[in-house]
Amino acid sequence: MQRLRDHIEEITSLTDEEFEYIKTFFTLRKVRKNQFLLHESDEVKFEFLALDGIYKVFYIDENGKEHIVQFAKKNWWMTDYIGFFKQNNATMFVECLKEGEVVCLTLEGREKLAAEFHKMEHFFRVKLTNGYIALQQRITLLLSSTPQQRYEEFSRLYPDLILQIPKKYVAEYLGVSRETLSRLYTNDNKY
Amino acid sequence: MQRLRDHIEEITSLTDEEFEYIKTFFTLRKVRKNQFLLHESDEVKFEFLALDGIYKVFYIDENGKEHIVQFAKKNWWMTDYIGFFKQNNATMFVECLKEGEVVCLTLEGREKLAAEFHKMEHFFRVKLTNGYIALQQRITLLLSSTPQQRYEEFSRLYPDLILQIPKKYVAEYLGVSRETLSRLYTNDNKY
Repeated sequence: MQRLRDHIEEITSLTDEEFEYIKTFFTLRKVRKNQFLLHESDEVKFEFLALDGIYKVFYIDENGKEHIVQFAKKNWWMTDYIGFFKQNNATMFVECLKEGEVVCLTLEGREKLAAEFHKMEHFFRVKLTNGYIALQQRITLLLSSTPQQRYEEFSRLYPDLILQIPKKYVAEYLGVSRETLSRLYTNDNKY
Repeated sequence: MQRLRDHIEEITSLTDEEFEYIKTFFTLRKVRKNQFLLHESDEVKFEFLALDGIYKVFYIDENGKEHIVQFAKKNWWMTDYIGFFKQNNATMFVECLKEGEVVCLTLEGREKLAAEFHKMEHFFRVKLTNGYIALQQRITLLLSSTPQQRYEEFSRLYPDLILQIPKKYVAEYLGVSRETLSRLYTNDNKY
């Protein structure tokens, strides 16, 4: 749980007493590769903070096609946020791509922590601000005209992720074919 | 400013004294049709809350093509949020499509209000949560396979907006041609 404390204290400092209480809201969970933290049509009980590992959040459309909404790595939060915040059943899946550990927080726990501690309300606001920026960048990336621009933008934003995620998922995330993506990797002297 | 108070009090109640102080952080601005609240490469001084009117936030890519990131109407917040939160110059434009009034808030003002009042920190967190959900829906819409699915999703989420926004902008937002969109409008018995 020290990693959770470090993560919160990047935004706001906590006393030992405060953290002892705050940590009771979180549960630790180990996740193996290919294991699902959330499955479509499940109740969305938790959001997850990745302590390590790599994860993908995706949904399957009515034609059976998979669409990746986000990846997550250390210190990123993830879940089906529409289902979580609206307390609807999941329309998305959360799957582990590289084993790791997560901590799980319920919406009730999140709201209670935010109500009891101004500093936790602040923490969640800052994390949401960062999440909002990441989604806006995701939109810009999707709207960008060419596969090359999408690839370059993704490489620029997440140079570490692009090295750790199988190419087929990067291709899917960027909405380009695997052949096109392989060409972009080959053309890119950095890799 | 009563409309600003009503908007905040949808989330959290305020005393008269609190609102008298809080409102000093906001400036009121009338906006005419086709007027810009923000222009690419401007310093992003403000975020804007629409009290009424219709607005679009867009950027122009390196090929000169316009991409609409979001629309905004009464009680929606808007700006170039990446520029605003990171205090970079704007890469986006905010343009008025239907005249109205907005209130303007600086990042410094926002942070001060959030730090001084737990309830304002809460207010901004709730608004960010809603904004986050809207962006996630925008991503799902962009990832959806067919023009028809995109159009139906947009109609479902924003039935009032689709009636008020010129078709050419709806087409651009959905990433479909105007001809395709006209066909979808015609096929849709509701309109």
